[in-house]
Amino acid sequence: MSDPALKPGERIDHLLRQDLRIIQNPADFCFSMDAVLLAHFTALKPNERIVDLGTGSGVIPLLLASRRKDLTVTGLEIQPQVAERAERSVRLNGLQDRISIVCGDLKEAEALLPTGKFTVVTSNPPYMGPSGGLRNETEAFSLARHEIACTLEDVIAAAARLLTFKGRLAMVHRPQRLVDLFWCMRSYNLEPKRLRLVHPRLGRKPNMVLVEAVLGAGVELEVAEPLYIYGQDGEYTPELIEMYYPEAGR
Amino acid sequence: MSDPALKPGERIDHLLRQDLRIIQNPADFCFSMDAVLLAHFTALKPNERIVDLGTGSGVIPLLLASRRKDLTVTGLEIQPQVAERAERSVRLNGLQDRISIVCGDLKEAEALLPTGKFTVVTSNPPYMGPSGGLRNETEAFSLARHEIACTLEDVIAAAARLLTFKGRLAMVHRPQRLVDLFWCMRSYNLEPKRLRLVHPRLGRKPNMVLVEAVLGAGVELEVAEPLYIYGQDGEYTPELIEMYYPEAGR
Repeated sequence: MSDPALKPGERIDHLLRQDLRIIQNPADFCFSMDAVLLAHFTALKPNERIVDLGTGSGVIPLLLASRRKDLTVTGLEIQPQVAERAERSVRLNGLQDRISIVCGDLKEAEALLPTGKFTVVTSNPPYMGPSGGLRNETEAFSLARHEIACTLEDVIAAAARLLTFKGRLAMVHRPQRLVDLFWCMRSYNLEPKRLRLVHPRLGRKPNMVLVEAVLGAGVELEVAEPLYIYGQDGEYTPELIEMYYPEAGR
Repeated sequence: MSDPALKPGERIDHLLRQDLRIIQNPADFCFSMDAVLLAHFTALKPNERIVDLGTGSGVIPLLLASRRKDLTVTGLEIQPQVAERAERSVRLNGLQDRISIVCGDLKEAEALLPTGKFTVVTSNPPYMGPSGGLRNETEAFSLARHEIACTLEDVIAAAARLLTFKGRLAMVHRPQRLVDLFWCMRSYNLEPKRLRLVHPRLGRKPNMVLVEAVLGAGVELEVAEPLYIYGQDGEYTPELIEMYYPEAGR
C-alpha cells in the first residue's frame, strides 16, 4: 500500500508500537505523551466498541487498535481538515476496517453516533479554559488546548449518552481539575472507579491524572500506584519504555 | 504537676514531639499514624482557632498545640469517658489554657460551639460504613472506626457551619472514599484545594489521603508530591522521622 499523499506542512511520524505510523502537521498540533498514557491506561476487554471524543490526529484509536485485534474504534473530531488527516492515517496503517473517523461536534454526538451502544469512551480533552494560555496559536492548536469548542462537561455528558450501562469512560487531564472531573462524572452517573497520578519523576508533584469512570457503578475508588515518566537516572522508566517500544523487552 | 490518676486499662504514652504525653486505653482505641499525618498536613497560620471533630484521645489537639504556641483548639468528642480521658491528657500536658475538650455530638455542633468563628476544622473520622469490618469490638472502638454516630457528610456539614469564610477543613480518609470526600466537600461550598496521597512505600498504592478544603474558595486543586511512610531500606522516611521525632535532625 502506498502512503497517502502528504499535504503542505504534514509529516509521517512513527508511533513505534507495532510499526504504526501517523500523519501530523506540527503547525496544528502534534499528539503528546498524554494520549499515549491514556491509550495504555484504558482497560480493554474482548470486543470493545470504543469512541474517542476529540480524536485529533487519531493517535488514540491507532494505539487502541494495536493493543487488541478484536476492538473497533470511532474517532470523533470537529475540525474537518484534522479529521481528514486522521482518516488518511487510518488508511496508511490499513486499519479502515476497525477505525472510523467521524467529523462532527461532540455536543451533537447523539445525532452523529448510536447512543447507549459503546462499551468504552476515551478522551484527551482541552485542558485550559477558553482564554488561558497563549493566544498566538493556529485555530487547530487552540481548539485542541482550550475549552473553546467544548467544555469538560460537554465531553462527559456526551460520554454518558454514548455508553452502555456499565460502560467505561477513560480520560486524561491536569491534576488541578481533578475535583471538577470527579464532580462532573458523578453528576452524569459516571462513577470514578480508578485513578492514576502521573509524576514527571520520583518526589515530584503529579502533572497528569488518568481517571476511569463506570456508568451506573457503585461508589468506591481504586487509586493505583504512581506512574513515573523519568527514573532517577534521567531516562524513561521501564513502564514508559514498554509503552513506547513494546517489543524492546521481548 | 503530678500525673492524673489512671483508670483501669489506661496507660500513658509519649507522643515524642516536644515530650507530649497522652492517656490511652488500648481496649477502646489508640490513635494511629493517620492522626499524626493529619496534624502535620494541616496548614497553620498565626492565631488559628481550631476545632477537631471526633477528637477521641485528643491526639490532634495536642499535636497542633505543640506546632504553634499562638493557636487554640477545641476537641469535640461524643463519648463521655473518651472526652474525660482527653481532658485529663490536656491537663497532663498543662495545655488547658489552649485546648478545650467538649463532650457532645458533632451533628449538634451549632448548639455546642459558636458558628462561623473557627479558622480551621480538622477531622480523622470513622472510615468504614456502619456495618463493615469486625463486629467484636468495644463500643468506643466501633464508634471510632464505623460511621455509626456520624457519617462523612455529618462531619463536613458541621465543618461548613463552624468555619469562617475562607476557613479550612483538613481531613484524612481512605483513598476509596476520595470521590465522596470531594463530592461532599463541594456540596457544602468547601472547595478541595490541596491533596496529598500517603503510600506505605515506593511503588505501592496509597492507603491514605489527606485533603484540605477551603470554604467559599474558587476551583483549582493542588496535588502534592506523594508521602511515603517507609523507605527502600524498610525504615521510616526522613519526612516521617521528622514528624515523630522533630528534634532528631536538629
